[in-house]
Amino acid sequence: MSILAPVHSILAKTGLDAIVLVPGANFRRVFGTDFHQMERPLEVIVPKAGEAVAIVPNLELASFAAIGFPGQVFDWRDEAGYMGAFMAAGEALPQLRQGARIGVEGQRMRVFDLFALQKALPGAVFVDIHAGISALRLHKLPHEIELQRKAIRLSEAALEATLQEVKVGMTETEIESILLRNLFSHGADGLAFAPIVAAGDNAAKPHAHARPDYRIEPGDALLFDFGGSYQGYSADITRTFFVKEVSDFDRAFYETVLAANEKGRAVSRAGITASEVDDAVQKVLEGSQFAEFRRHKTGHGLGLDVHEAPQIMRGNGQVLEPGMVYTIEPGLYRLGEAGVRIEDDVVVTEDGIDCLTSFPRELRLVG
Amino acid sequence: MSILAPVHSILAKTGLDAIVLVPGANFRRVFGTDFHQMERPLEVIVPKAGEAVAIVPNLELASFAAIGFPGQVFDWRDEAGYMGAFMAAGEALPQLRQGARIGVEGQRMRVFDLFALQKALPGAVFVDIHAGISALRLHKLPHEIELQRKAIRLSEAALEATLQEVKVGMTETEIESILLRNLFSHGADGLAFAPIVAAGDNAAKPHAHARPDYRIEPGDALLFDFGGSYQGYSADITRTFFVKEVSDFDRAFYETVLAANEKGRAVSRAGITASEVDDAVQKVLEGSQFAEFRRHKTGHGLGLDVHEAPQIMRGNGQVLEPGMVYTIEPGLYRLGEAGVRIEDDVVVTEDGIDCLTSFPRELRLVG
Repeated sequence: MSILAPVHSILAKTGLDAIVLVPGANFRRVFGTDFHQMERPLEVIVPKAGEAVAIVPNLELASFAAIGFPGQVFDWRDEAGYMGAFMAAGEALPQLRQGARIGVEGQRMRVFDLFALQKALPGAVFVDIHAGISALRLHKLPHEIELQRKAIRLSEAALEATLQEVKVGMTETEIESILLRNLFSHGADGLAFAPIVAAGDNAAKPHAHARPDYRIEPGDALLFDFGGSYQGYSADITRTFFVKEVSDFDRAFYETVLAANEKGRAVSRAGITASEVDDAVQKVLEGSQFAEFRRHKTGHGLGLDVHEAPQIMRGNGQVLEPGMVYTIEPGLYRLGEAGVRIEDDVVVTEDGIDCLTSFPRELRLVG
Repeated sequence: MSILAPVHSILAKTGLDAIVLVPGANFRRVFGTDFHQMERPLEVIVPKAGEAVAIVPNLELASFAAIGFPGQVFDWRDEAGYMGAFMAAGEALPQLRQGARIGVEGQRMRVFDLFALQKALPGAVFVDIHAGISALRLHKLPHEIELQRKAIRLSEAALEATLQEVKVGMTETEIESILLRNLFSHGADGLAFAPIVAAGDNAAKPHAHARPDYRIEPGDALLFDFGGSYQGYSADITRTFFVKEVSDFDRAFYETVLAANEKGRAVSRAGITASEVDDAVQKVLEGSQFAEFRRHKTGHGLGLDVHEAPQIMRGNGQVLEPGMVYTIEPGLYRLGEAGVRIEDDVVVTEDGIDCLTSFPRELRLVG
């Protein structure tokens, strides 16, 4: 079977005339390896009919040769620039020159790649089918789930080690640096994303940055949203703790989020839609005394991209199927005061879900 | 002075009607903070005349409020999607609707951002002026150079600690994981990029991936291209060692690259062009017995982006000025055999350069 078979399958489903892949998660799933996206464009164009072509920076040729690409390669050197290779690729694809519809990964491909393609294939129409192309990664392979499990295990061990070191009076950036050290000493080979370590009012910002000048105090919420990665697969875990003590109000706030998280795990199973999962989770929050503090959907798919399909949100009619992996991460945010989010990573199985994360969720005091 | 003054200065220089910024290095330099680029678009549109507007995911509003953006903000929630906010932003920018020329960061903005802008501002023409916008970061501020220096110091210390642990028979991935652990235990708060640890024939690929199944042997080249980051600023360092022993041929190969690196540092100074630096470096390689093994330009700018202007390559007439930071990283690559690259990071000063990297360059045996 051709290495490009998954792409041809998407072509057949979407009725497009060609699909362009750039380095990133889809590229990696198709070719088994990846390239760094930088100032040197690298693209693979797979037409419905005829041979595929690739545009490759000359200095990547040896690495590219190793992926077994079944098509024509146009390379370019720094001193000549990339447009010549794009124009030559366009010449090699006469079937894409008049009114052809070409699908691109809109959330991944950058504008300068698109502009070069538009010059090389002036008659074509470019369409964002990011979700359509990424569908080739919706169902995880067993070895992918094992790698994800490994990333999660090491990340959870790093979190526990970090909590052992947390003390009242530390800054968020100090705690973040302890977490980073622990991630790599536990075997991470990369970061899923820049971790969020946020205390007190900073925890009320869903995507907070650690502050170097705020020292954690008794009663603060202390939120970690982080993940190590391993061979391209990532953990994405959130746990929220309280420093030394917790008020009854904050405890009720926490328990509301935990109930929503539990609901999300309880309802998740093959056959229901992503919308139904979010709806069940949101209803827990909406039915609570803290309804006004909701800010975001339940979760997102997780794989070679840290945010991918299926989006777990109302209106997404995607039916969940075995092998899909996503996060369940309800949160509540009282601006200026505190935020709580509890996030698990789950894989849909034949008879429910397998929750890949296992770090305890009961309210815990630290420091 | 308005926080947007640097953007207005680029607008004046380029004659554009507006500039759009997305999260990334330019955004961070202008606003002092950054947002993670993901499936939720966040954009700032700065018109030449009239008030700026921003399109912001609702869950980022609190973080966004902290940057002191002087303009109108259109937020959107997951359940509604982002097009409504884009259309409202378009309505608020009537001056950009007919034939306006709008500059975007082509190497950073993604295609789905562009498509949404094109719908919201259907009469406008979008132009890639990545280099033009990034020019606002060409001259580093003193505090930026200090952060970069800190990232480099900790990265060099991590390399030395790693070399102490390298032994014949280790795999490239084992050595990579030692390097990662050392980077974070020495204070890195992120990675400039996924490090390259490559031995033997793998070192002949300029952007190699570490192999889990190759054990380093006496006589192998062992190349590290890596960098920790610190508060957004990155090191980018390459050193090549030999395992236990080195042949006379490889020693001559190494010394040729070192001579080219030395030439690059010797000729660099304010007033000459990036092209002249590359030309001097390339001539050392071209004049050697190894001319055929050249593969790439001398270097690239280094700052909030790991690859940015000024590109140190022939044909780039950019005159070097004090405060510019770039890499000098000549390399030679004998496919299937060995590769050598030696990379330093330098800042142009009033009377030459300050070489920020100080890790020794003399040929060194390890393992």
